[in-house]
Amino acid sequence: MSDRKAWLLETLHILNGTDTMDASDGFTRLSFTEAEKAVHRQFAVTAEELGLSVRSDEAGNQWALWEADASAPMITLGSHLDTVDNGGGYDGVAGVLTALAAVKQLKDSGYQPKKTIAVICFVFEESARFGVSTIGSKAITGKLDKQAIADVEDRDGVTIREAAKGFGLDWGAIDEAAVPSNRIESFLELHIEQGTVLPDSGCEIGIVHGIACPVRLKVTASGMANHTGTTPMDKRQDAFAAVAPLVQAVQQEAFKRNQEADQQLVATVSTVNLKPNAMNVIPGEVELGIDIRSVDDAAKRNFAAWVKEHCAELESETGVNIDVSTLVNNDSVMLDDPIREKLLNVSRDLGYRTLEMNSGAGHDVMNMQAKWPSGLVFIPCKDGISHHPAEFASMEDIDRGVQVLAAFLKSEAGGEN
Amino acid sequence: MSDRKAWLLETLHILNGTDTMDASDGFTRLSFTEAEKAVHRQFAVTAEELGLSVRSDEAGNQWALWEADASAPMITLGSHLDTVDNGGGYDGVAGVLTALAAVKQLKDSGYQPKKTIAVICFVFEESARFGVSTIGSKAITGKLDKQAIADVEDRDGVTIREAAKGFGLDWGAIDEAAVPSNRIESFLELHIEQGTVLPDSGCEIGIVHGIACPVRLKVTASGMANHTGTTPMDKRQDAFAAVAPLVQAVQQEAFKRNQEADQQLVATVSTVNLKPNAMNVIPGEVELGIDIRSVDDAAKRNFAAWVKEHCAELESETGVNIDVSTLVNNDSVMLDDPIREKLLNVSRDLGYRTLEMNSGAGHDVMNMQAKWPSGLVFIPCKDGISHHPAEFASMEDIDRGVQVLAAFLKSEAGGEN
Repeated sequence: MSDRKAWLLETLHILNGTDTMDASDGFTRLSFTEAEKAVHRQFAVTAEELGLSVRSDEAGNQWALWEADASAPMITLGSHLDTVDNGGGYDGVAGVLTALAAVKQLKDSGYQPKKTIAVICFVFEESARFGVSTIGSKAITGKLDKQAIADVEDRDGVTIREAAKGFGLDWGAIDEAAVPSNRIESFLELHIEQGTVLPDSGCEIGIVHGIACPVRLKVTASGMANHTGTTPMDKRQDAFAAVAPLVQAVQQEAFKRNQEADQQLVATVSTVNLKPNAMNVIPGEVELGIDIRSVDDAAKRNFAAWVKEHCAELESETGVNIDVSTLVNNDSVMLDDPIREKLLNVSRDLGYRTLEMNSGAGHDVMNMQAKWPSGLVFIPCKDGISHHPAEFASMEDIDRGVQVLAAFLKSEAGGEN
Repeated sequence: MSDRKAWLLETLHILNGTDTMDASDGFTRLSFTEAEKAVHRQFAVTAEELGLSVRSDEAGNQWALWEADASAPMITLGSHLDTVDNGGGYDGVAGVLTALAAVKQLKDSGYQPKKTIAVICFVFEESARFGVSTIGSKAITGKLDKQAIADVEDRDGVTIREAAKGFGLDWGAIDEAAVPSNRIESFLELHIEQGTVLPDSGCEIGIVHGIACPVRLKVTASGMANHTGTTPMDKRQDAFAAVAPLVQAVQQEAFKRNQEADQQLVATVSTVNLKPNAMNVIPGEVELGIDIRSVDDAAKRNFAAWVKEHCAELESETGVNIDVSTLVNNDSVMLDDPIREKLLNVSRDLGYRTLEMNSGAGHDVMNMQAKWPSGLVFIPCKDGISHHPAEFASMEDIDRGVQVLAAFLKSEAGGEN
């Protein structure tokens, strides 16, 4: 193994907080927890070892600067280190690791940038703990709606405001993490693909065109809780039996629509909350959460409309009241054209089989693109598995990502070696 | 309102811990909690006011004795005071209240029994907290399998053993609550019907023949957790989409079988546990709980076999692994013939429209019947609603129950007035 790959592997292990990567239960570093704090501290140690100057901003993001002309806007890149429950070792981590490795490679080669290069380690990217996501990058862009999220609770009833305090932040000052437009020139994120488009196409690097932001629906079926043993079958208003057919119908409808569509759509009934969820009580109320994504915004909204129609049919068939409300309804994000062209050229010049593609998952780069020209680089991950302990990206793929980032930085930050 | 009904109403309010019965959220007195303890204390106060001597046994059951010949076996009756989450005010309470009221009526009339009459307030009847039920009556009959339940946890990870300690019990001594066969002559429970057979038949009192104990199944579907946005529809192993069709199928199959059956069967998918239950992760594992009941034991076991076959079909259609395990598989309980005949005669002699019927719900009397001749009296409840804040039984119906109990006690306990 080359020294470079050995450094990548070692740093991966350090950032994941284990020497062995024997993590059969995966990694659990939920947002705004001590586990996220610990890995941020490790990021700072590693970045300082590379000679970068590290500071935290008011939202808890870490900035590791390779300082050059202080008057010029910065070239920025990075990702996050928090995870879902029992997540993998590469979602977010690969982006932070390759950013540091690209800086190390440029430094090792004697390169000196003209513009400051900043590696950002975003705080609180995942929605697993609170159902809201990318808080760190929203704060940097000044798009954070603090009032809307302050009292959102995790499963233990801890609010985001309380978690921020526990993370060492001053909730009143979080807005001050916002960076003026003229301080940043561009932003670049690398991420594992979390899908199989790259391996299926035989490509090694993906350069992302659009990000398919979700439409999210909450379906609430309200029947009547009653005793399972004493309520005859014809006297029931079983909310679960009424709405459960929707789960497979959503899957089948998405399949069907994809047969005739240019842009693929994915739709998932991913959450359920059943009341009272007791063995001897007929379900009185059921909430289902549905996640619908496509870069074709019209397609995903048409699908949401179909869900509402289908629920109306289930309601009239069963007599159980079924309501559908929209939790999230975001437009897809198209990334910066010139940056994408540069990334495609850089990757192909390096000899990598390169695919221009879309992303089905949201990332911090969505928020950054709203304020600064931004790009997103994908590397493959094994079998497309993500948010799971079996998540894996090879050192070869990670290293190819490093080469793309390093070449891009060199072309953007100017300077010489 | 008569003095007798006023006393019933007042005692009902006292036992439910409220003066107003304005309980739009119902009552939550889970088993082995401080809330159950408090209502047991109130039971003791009320029973002592009637001149009964009250003691707790080693399992936490309350015994209120109207003492007579200490050498003769006791005539016993009673029910429980714990509830499900947000349960009603009558399930269990009606049985305890009518037992006390029957004693009061006999005392007020100057009656003196020859045999001791014992009102039992059973502890821990409901399965809502731990998924296991009727611990108090099992302990009295000596049927409690302590080892099997000691480490069963509630949703907060508290074990039954720990909860028993918190309730003031010595876990090691619980077996000593067992009562020798020759100390009890008979047991009688009154309960709200929790169904609509009584009102549908125009009857005022039900005398129960058999109790349909459940077969309970756990269905576990194991797919693959993955990102909802990045995993194409044709690359998924969505455990929820695979197994969800079972929910409605169980309902429809029970309907269908009831068309041709003498004894009705009820079957319910009443619980679900989905992992990871996060908006952006495809469900990787789903557990469903199924409750199947009929007094026809073969019918319910045939139904369980059908569930297993249907799950095998879903497994082969979807490629998601689906396992079915049996949690509970109890025979139905047939109550004592002579006692049932006496109760039918007593009720009809009182001029009440009386129905011989089966019970779809389990009660403490199931356990008592295994050791002592036992009977079960049903009174109607509004619209069959139970385990719900809207549960209601009228004072007229409750009072009819009191008359049946009092007349039965008088015929069984001997003595005179």
